[in-house]
Amino acid sequence: MPAQKKHQVAIIGSGNWGSTMGKIVAENTASNPDLFHHDVRMWVFEEDIQVPDDSQHRSKYGDKEQKLTSVINNVHENVKYLPGIKLPENLIATPDIVSAVQDATILIFNLPHQFIGKTLDQIKGKHLPYTRGISCIKGVDVSDGIITLYSELIMEKLGIYCGALSGANIAPEVAAEHLCETTIGYDPPPMDLTSGDGCPKDNLIKVDEQRQAKTKPSSIQLERMPQEYAHVDAELWETLFARPYFFVHVVKDVAGVALSGALKNIIALAAGFVAGKQWGENTKAAIIRLGIQEMVLFGRTWFPRSVNERTFTEESAGIADLVASCYGGRNVRSATHAVEKGVSVGEIEETEMNGQKLQGVSTAQTVYAFLEKHEKTEDFPLFCAVNRIVEGRAKVDDMPAILNKK
Amino acid sequence: MPAQKKHQVAIIGSGNWGSTMGKIVAENTASNPDLFHHDVRMWVFEEDIQVPDDSQHRSKYGDKEQKLTSVINNVHENVKYLPGIKLPENLIATPDIVSAVQDATILIFNLPHQFIGKTLDQIKGKHLPYTRGISCIKGVDVSDGIITLYSELIMEKLGIYCGALSGANIAPEVAAEHLCETTIGYDPPPMDLTSGDGCPKDNLIKVDEQRQAKTKPSSIQLERMPQEYAHVDAELWETLFARPYFFVHVVKDVAGVALSGALKNIIALAAGFVAGKQWGENTKAAIIRLGIQEMVLFGRTWFPRSVNERTFTEESAGIADLVASCYGGRNVRSATHAVEKGVSVGEIEETEMNGQKLQGVSTAQTVYAFLEKHEKTEDFPLFCAVNRIVEGRAKVDDMPAILNKK
Repeated sequence: MPAQKKHQVAIIGSGNWGSTMGKIVAENTASNPDLFHHDVRMWVFEEDIQVPDDSQHRSKYGDKEQKLTSVINNVHENVKYLPGIKLPENLIATPDIVSAVQDATILIFNLPHQFIGKTLDQIKGKHLPYTRGISCIKGVDVSDGIITLYSELIMEKLGIYCGALSGANIAPEVAAEHLCETTIGYDPPPMDLTSGDGCPKDNLIKVDEQRQAKTKPSSIQLERMPQEYAHVDAELWETLFARPYFFVHVVKDVAGVALSGALKNIIALAAGFVAGKQWGENTKAAIIRLGIQEMVLFGRTWFPRSVNERTFTEESAGIADLVASCYGGRNVRSATHAVEKGVSVGEIEETEMNGQKLQGVSTAQTVYAFLEKHEKTEDFPLFCAVNRIVEGRAKVDDMPAILNKK
Repeated sequence: MPAQKKHQVAIIGSGNWGSTMGKIVAENTASNPDLFHHDVRMWVFEEDIQVPDDSQHRSKYGDKEQKLTSVINNVHENVKYLPGIKLPENLIATPDIVSAVQDATILIFNLPHQFIGKTLDQIKGKHLPYTRGISCIKGVDVSDGIITLYSELIMEKLGIYCGALSGANIAPEVAAEHLCETTIGYDPPPMDLTSGDGCPKDNLIKVDEQRQAKTKPSSIQLERMPQEYAHVDAELWETLFARPYFFVHVVKDVAGVALSGALKNIIALAAGFVAGKQWGENTKAAIIRLGIQEMVLFGRTWFPRSVNERTFTEESAGIADLVASCYGGRNVRSATHAVEKGVSVGEIEETEMNGQKLQGVSTAQTVYAFLEKHEKTEDFPLFCAVNRIVEGRAKVDDMPAILNKK
């Protein structure tokens, strides 16, 4: 049966990655009018900005302060967070989160993790009950020995099903339309043939048994999507996200997609440490390989029912994103720099990053605390070595002995 | 039963990788006197050399011509092919291949592939009938639509069982004892409990059925190793090859180990092409991931019985060596340079490499001809795109469209 109702897409967040996703998705809704409403709404955390001196739009605005949403909607460029990239005219910025989400059947979450809790509070109860989500938020939430994916947090808070998107996707390179790939994890509860997308209301989201034992059982009643809408499945996600330069692979393993995007930052620090020692390409490649092995083991240990180890070893969210992060980006650069200068990574954060924390550092600390709590540090020598080096309790020169399983 | 006879190890070849293997193996025979004879023999293709001006041994030798073997045995350094690295005193260079191999129970083949045929002719009939081999020779032999691993060539020519060693192992970095890993593929025919290492004389080496249909059946009668020798198995290989800085993983998949070392060079050219375009880390990571997928498919297609795809996705011989080759080495550098200068890779070979061929170029051509013969080019868009770009029949800018499976 052809779809009678069109999906409305909304993007929650408008940083460089949010704006890039907005660009891609709006290009695809425009070229698939049978499936999607033309306009995509992008919620923007409103700011007063001055259009930068070197912007081509400076002559229009002068040095007066402007609302970021007005600039985006008038000149179709996010001059503050994604300068130089033309955004589609059907990507509509709005400062009002309720109006952004209220009619949306598809919500794409793309904002820094520290804002997710507050943002969900604002959305709660204002969205369609049967809407579906994709989380592009990197990282995982760990507290009290319990690990939660942001897609799970969204499911719990809003009572909607949410998948995850991650890959080797440095935002400005994707926005410049350079060839790359991404992975979407999406695996709603078992299909009910009479429902729109396989989420019958009386189904429960089951978390992994092993984690269930450590946390409260997470059971959410999902609302069925009306059958007038096109089925929300792998094919729909490909239609919405794939571009001639942006290849999309949809898998069922949401946990693997989300975990990779978090754990890779620890390994990127290790890659930087050995690069700083000038141990060469062999060593960096060994770190990457050993890192994947620990990612796989981490997934198998805490998400035994849901993780597919191929997500780590074969998908863009796994191996490709890890490789990209071990050769480019702030984590590997700062760790290299620290070793070359003979200082700690913390000192680099202070002196060269205005005290801003590296993602690899906070993830290494969080994961180490988590592993200690579960008495599993010995199974993850690389992850733990990185944290010990960051904290000054081990040296980079100790790594061969630490990693040697003989 | 403890071993009553000690294994004698010989290295066939003494380039930078052969000398590095000689160093590692001689260190391990010295520290495992129960299992191995102290001295390791290294066959050296004899050359008259002048000790280089900057060698610390120049004062001893002046500018007179010397035999390479004498220099190695006197000053324990391969001043021509691995300068600056101290070799163990129990690594004994010999120009006489027969004396090198005649008592050896373990032969390590480590020479350029173009010399392997002639060298095997010299060894044939002069070695112990029950000796076992490890091939460190990169590449595969392809002719008339038939693909042969060098380990198979050694098996056929000498009638001995031979495994393979490969990994992210740039020789000077390993020789300098920087942390890295390697993979050994070893899978002799099913074990006969009364034999020394599971190679009963009446067993046949079976090649993959699919290849068997295209080539002559390869059946070799193997001689059983006397049971006075320690069992030649994964544990023995680890004892012989592993060092505190050189981690060894033994797998059964010989074909995967050998194939990775050949196919990675094609992908390294692709990585160089996109790097030359400055498409960024995302694109290079995508090329690496798509490359592994084609390596896996190649292995599955022509070695369906023996290949384990994890060799490609999880071992040092696979993913780690591929990553190292896509970020360092001549293939990626030359391809990058060619795109930056707007010339062909062939022109770079002419003008900057004295007409020397890049391994990636010859492998891309060989594999392309092989795929054409089997009418499989469409299944390997990346491998074929590289060859078309090398031959000027496609442009790097065509890659996104070529690789897009939509």
